[in-house]
Amino acid sequence: MQWVKVLGGVVGAAALLGLGIIVGHFAIPKGADSPAPSASASQDLDLKILETVIEQLDANRIRENLRELSKEPHLATTPRDEALVQLLLQRWQDPESGLDSARTTEYEVLLSFPSGEQPNRVAVVNSTGAILFSCRHSEENLTGEQGGPNVVPPYAAYAPPGTPQAVNAAKYGVAGVLVYTDPKDINDGKSLPNETFPHSWCLPPSGVERGSYFEYFGDPLTPYLPATPSSFRLNSDNASGFPPIPIQPIGFEDAQVLLCNLGGNLAPADWQGGLGCDYNLGPGFRSNGIFPEDGQVNVSVHNRLELRNSSNVLGIIRGAVEPDRYVLYGNHRDSWVHGAVDPSTGTAVLLELSRVLGTLLKKGTWRPRRSIVFASWGAEEFGLIGSTEFTEEFFSKLQERAVAYINVDISVFANATLRVQGTPPIQSVVFSAAKQISAPGSSGLSIYDNWIRYYNRSSSVYGLVPSVGTLGAGSDYAPFIHFLGISSMDIAYTYDRSKTSARIYPTYHTAFDTFDYVDKFLDPGFSSHQAVARTAGSVLLRLSDSLFLPLNVSDYSETLRSFLQAAEDLRVLLEQHGISLGPLVTAVERFEGAATAFNQRIATLQEGTPDPLQVRMINDQLMLLERTFLNSQAFPEERYYSHVLWAPRTGSVATFPGLSNAYSQAKNAGHEPAAWAEVQRQLSIVVAALEGAAATLRPVADL
Amino acid sequence: MQWVKVLGGVVGAAALLGLGIIVGHFAIPKGADSPAPSASASQDLDLKILETVIEQLDANRIRENLRELSKEPHLATTPRDEALVQLLLQRWQDPESGLDSARTTEYEVLLSFPSGEQPNRVAVVNSTGAILFSCRHSEENLTGEQGGPNVVPPYAAYAPPGTPQAVNAAKYGVAGVLVYTDPKDINDGKSLPNETFPHSWCLPPSGVERGSYFEYFGDPLTPYLPATPSSFRLNSDNASGFPPIPIQPIGFEDAQVLLCNLGGNLAPADWQGGLGCDYNLGPGFRSNGIFPEDGQVNVSVHNRLELRNSSNVLGIIRGAVEPDRYVLYGNHRDSWVHGAVDPSTGTAVLLELSRVLGTLLKKGTWRPRRSIVFASWGAEEFGLIGSTEFTEEFFSKLQERAVAYINVDISVFANATLRVQGTPPIQSVVFSAAKQISAPGSSGLSIYDNWIRYYNRSSSVYGLVPSVGTLGAGSDYAPFIHFLGISSMDIAYTYDRSKTSARIYPTYHTAFDTFDYVDKFLDPGFSSHQAVARTAGSVLLRLSDSLFLPLNVSDYSETLRSFLQAAEDLRVLLEQHGISLGPLVTAVERFEGAATAFNQRIATLQEGTPDPLQVRMINDQLMLLERTFLNSQAFPEERYYSHVLWAPRTGSVATFPGLSNAYSQAKNAGHEPAAWAEVQRQLSIVVAALEGAAATLRPVADL
Repeated sequence: MQWVKVLGGVVGAAALLGLGIIVGHFAIPKGADSPAPSASASQDLDLKILETVIEQLDANRIRENLRELSKEPHLATTPRDEALVQLLLQRWQDPESGLDSARTTEYEVLLSFPSGEQPNRVAVVNSTGAILFSCRHSEENLTGEQGGPNVVPPYAAYAPPGTPQAVNAAKYGVAGVLVYTDPKDINDGKSLPNETFPHSWCLPPSGVERGSYFEYFGDPLTPYLPATPSSFRLNSDNASGFPPIPIQPIGFEDAQVLLCNLGGNLAPADWQGGLGCDYNLGPGFRSNGIFPEDGQVNVSVHNRLELRNSSNVLGIIRGAVEPDRYVLYGNHRDSWVHGAVDPSTGTAVLLELSRVLGTLLKKGTWRPRRSIVFASWGAEEFGLIGSTEFTEEFFSKLQERAVAYINVDISVFANATLRVQGTPPIQSVVFSAAKQISAPGSSGLSIYDNWIRYYNRSSSVYGLVPSVGTLGAGSDYAPFIHFLGISSMDIAYTYDRSKTSARIYPTYHTAFDTFDYVDKFLDPGFSSHQAVARTAGSVLLRLSDSLFLPLNVSDYSETLRSFLQAAEDLRVLLEQHGISLGPLVTAVERFEGAATAFNQRIATLQEGTPDPLQVRMINDQLMLLERTFLNSQAFPEERYYSHVLWAPRTGSVATFPGLSNAYSQAKNAGHEPAAWAEVQRQLSIVVAALEGAAATLRPVADL
Repeated sequence: MQWVKVLGGVVGAAALLGLGIIVGHFAIPKGADSPAPSASASQDLDLKILETVIEQLDANRIRENLRELSKEPHLATTPRDEALVQLLLQRWQDPESGLDSARTTEYEVLLSFPSGEQPNRVAVVNSTGAILFSCRHSEENLTGEQGGPNVVPPYAAYAPPGTPQAVNAAKYGVAGVLVYTDPKDINDGKSLPNETFPHSWCLPPSGVERGSYFEYFGDPLTPYLPATPSSFRLNSDNASGFPPIPIQPIGFEDAQVLLCNLGGNLAPADWQGGLGCDYNLGPGFRSNGIFPEDGQVNVSVHNRLELRNSSNVLGIIRGAVEPDRYVLYGNHRDSWVHGAVDPSTGTAVLLELSRVLGTLLKKGTWRPRRSIVFASWGAEEFGLIGSTEFTEEFFSKLQERAVAYINVDISVFANATLRVQGTPPIQSVVFSAAKQISAPGSSGLSIYDNWIRYYNRSSSVYGLVPSVGTLGAGSDYAPFIHFLGISSMDIAYTYDRSKTSARIYPTYHTAFDTFDYVDKFLDPGFSSHQAVARTAGSVLLRLSDSLFLPLNVSDYSETLRSFLQAAEDLRVLLEQHGISLGPLVTAVERFEGAATAFNQRIATLQEGTPDPLQVRMINDQLMLLERTFLNSQAFPEERYYSHVLWAPRTGSVATFPGLSNAYSQAKNAGHEPAAWAEVQRQLSIVVAALEGAAATLRPVADL
């Protein structure tokens, strides 16, 4: 998982706390037996096969996968990353447990690396330039895994080179940015060596979070085009989305030295952290500190942009009945360092799931109704690059044929509960899967019943249900949902929020994210991995094997109602500008009516013996509903974003994002007609999308 | 049919000759009998039904339809246009010969009309402003049909109001434009009253060609959104695509008075026409003419923009087996005046074809495999408005489900031969239909064999074949092919070019385009109408009833080869700028290989007994191939155009339009890197589209 967006910040006084956006994941099981394969047009989900798969997903094999995957650092495009490409190919081409076929696709993409010769440096200097203090260039080698040539030093990918020097830049003239992770945000306040890894799951004082600071996703030089060697490339000087000034991440051990010596006024209360001192705003060092008052922080960043070949690995199980319908399941392969948690907990699950299905396939026990595509994406950490290039290269096929995309990136953040993000149509299939599987531990609860204890909401349709989160752009599902309109989800096991407020598991993107960290602290016994493997595996089989696609399009109605409810807060001001919500209300009602009637038609068909083409027609409506929410004219400034319900929302009102954003801008702009015209345009785009969506759910011979 | 783009021109000396772009059409037959309907998944084209339909299409009924349709002027949104909406609804809801359902969809669109109170005026004035000469305000009432309140006076729709006065504006400071149609271009030189209608098919001296001067298509205020009453609308001041200066069309009778008295140098030879005098360039009137040398031309244009409700009429026959696959067949309904030829020759055929099919349907004799959608579009003459709004409103459904669009606008331009425009996949089905039907007249030839005598080409695959033209934006097929990527065609009967060089039939868009004109001169006996009805009807049935869709995607290979061949002329200069054609060559080869293999798989399947889902999967590949050529990022400046093979070509090289245009601009720009970067970008877009197209034709479980 990747991604960080940092705003503001000052050289010499970096109190930038909140990073990234979180992503999804997996787990393993065991056992086997043999129902008969079928190739009839009415082939449906076989519950015995499903039980077999769930049984066979083996926790210990996931553990062994993880050990292998994380034994060396495998930063994107490095030799170890390429070695893992071969490992995946070998597994998926195994005669006993492989898939029907496997191949790689390569892209030539623009990555960013620290210089091998000139390390990035952060130092405090006096007025003559003499160095008074230097931040570490690498993390402390606490477990023997933090040294060696393959551990990439901490850096901020895509931050430009430069050597800014200052203590606290002018409010709007920031020259460079230091980033660190505060113990208050990541360690529940713990900061001492004996409180942190390898003594606990907490981040050691020298740990530094790496990350990409590219604003968009996909290869920076080839937006909307696959990054084949011959493709048109922007000149990197013309590429957009890179930070304008140097950035360097440091550990909280070093941040403490800088921050606790800063002078000036006391920073606001919610800027204070866990470094054991008052955080001041600067400018300058304090008079009674360890640095002279005119000392300055000097930052040298020597990152370099490089074109590199990055591989995706694709493994395919051909569908027996509808080979032209694809259920995709993927995770990235590349890490920042060893990447045991991120992404290898996901890849370990991916390999175990493909092994179990591959074995049934090779035995002749099973072949899914639809095709299954497993994917191992490259260069995700730099900006979802492998997955995005894949969606660009296979745009037409995927748009026409993809049923759903299942993403399992980090499969285990923590041991407490399932966590799912996705679009509304996937809720029902995830619930069905989660109800069928026992939660890890001795509670005796199903994954579903355990989940609802941690994260729930009151549904107007179903009553109390687990809450499914929405999809941002934190992992490889982003191009699938935002660019292609494919129903997508991200699955993981995660925290008990009553026990930790850590922003994310503490060693995230550091050299301390290692196999032992997972094995000892995150998921000893790997039962959470297994739970994710079983859940995601069940979802995958239900999507690939069910006669009727288990997508409930009607579940979009609750989302639309909640967006509509939020839009009511805008009504007064909208009407003052001559903009009516009436057409939106009507469109939501029409969608609800069409979805309800559509589900009734499915229920009626299921009572009889529908012929194969009737089923296919219904399934096409189910598959393509998500596509109807795309509008390539809606957000011309937002690269790839075209889903009118899930585009980024910058406005504060939790309604349709285009409406929310345009309203927010118009309100700030006062009475500017063009700003209110854009509000009306966004409203019309949503209305047209909802009317179009409703139309596709009506009986197909009605126009 | 609509559409005119005028460049340049000067007040007082209007020698603007070439107008418009031509469009398609239909015809009728008789008789009946009754094969049994089928609803099995393997339902295929029934040749007996096809023969029955061909037999029953009745020339005399087409003639009577035409008489009714053209008896009054029916300019878009006028009461007579609305009356014809009711006529269509009534026909399509007839219990004996109607369709399964029929309805209207209304849009509120921006049209342009001359003022009722202040007629547009063109006059010659002297230096005191006294009027020396006035052009006619209306055409001469030669047949009793050129008078009356419903004959809209000649005007240039969307030309802004204004009263420019000049004799010959500065080269780049044109104040207004007069447009006329020269007898050399339209009448094979004939210009005398006794040589022209009602004595021949030629344009009378007072005839004036109306037209729309809007640059884009669709409702001008709601690009990309359906023009529902509540939709976002541009302020008409902000709308783009309107002419910047007043324009007024006049007849050649009046043009002669102005042009033959013009002074200055002799105009170039190819500007000379058939008005019986030398055409001079001005400025000013000549000294020995009928006007004083300082006389000026004064033009008053009082056109007004008005929001009006325009209706489409849709009639549906539900498919028996695949109701979610739509074969669309449409024509516009609105005319400039009586519109006997344009568009009623097409609508007369549409009504006869829907009657014959409706009768078989109501009798229970037949129901097509797929759904058929008949459409009567509104406000085409103003810019394909009804059809474009339809594609905007039903975007998702059409993109997912439309098999093909058949357009028959003007069905008979002349009596000589079939004329078809379309994308390559429709060639084969048109040829099959044309081979099956006898040509009108006593030649004994099939329509195909007659056609090949007039318009042919040497195909590298098939040898000598009739030549199918390409689709521009001259009629309602434009949004279907360019915006939605639906395989489209336009069908008509047309000229023997050895007998006339008229740009189009002479009374085009004038008040002389009446029933008698068709009945006496264009198609006495209506056998050409019948031939078009039979051809288009056969194409419609083949597309709606064949088990395998009769679209030959492999026929795109010849187009790609010819574009590639033309691109070879660019190779040297491209390579000088570091741009290689290699990837394009490879992509074309891959497309050819994939298409050939795909056709072989179809042939193999056809030999066996393919199951319904196998057929459906193949048909989806056939249906969606055209969609794979769309790229919404390709031509950001060109409203609606997204088909990378058929976007407008402004460059002179007959290759891929984006490449041709960018190359042409870059060549003119010299060594400007950004211009050559755009060439590479366009090349990469084409390569990605061709690779994507090839990918969709490969076996569906290959990625």
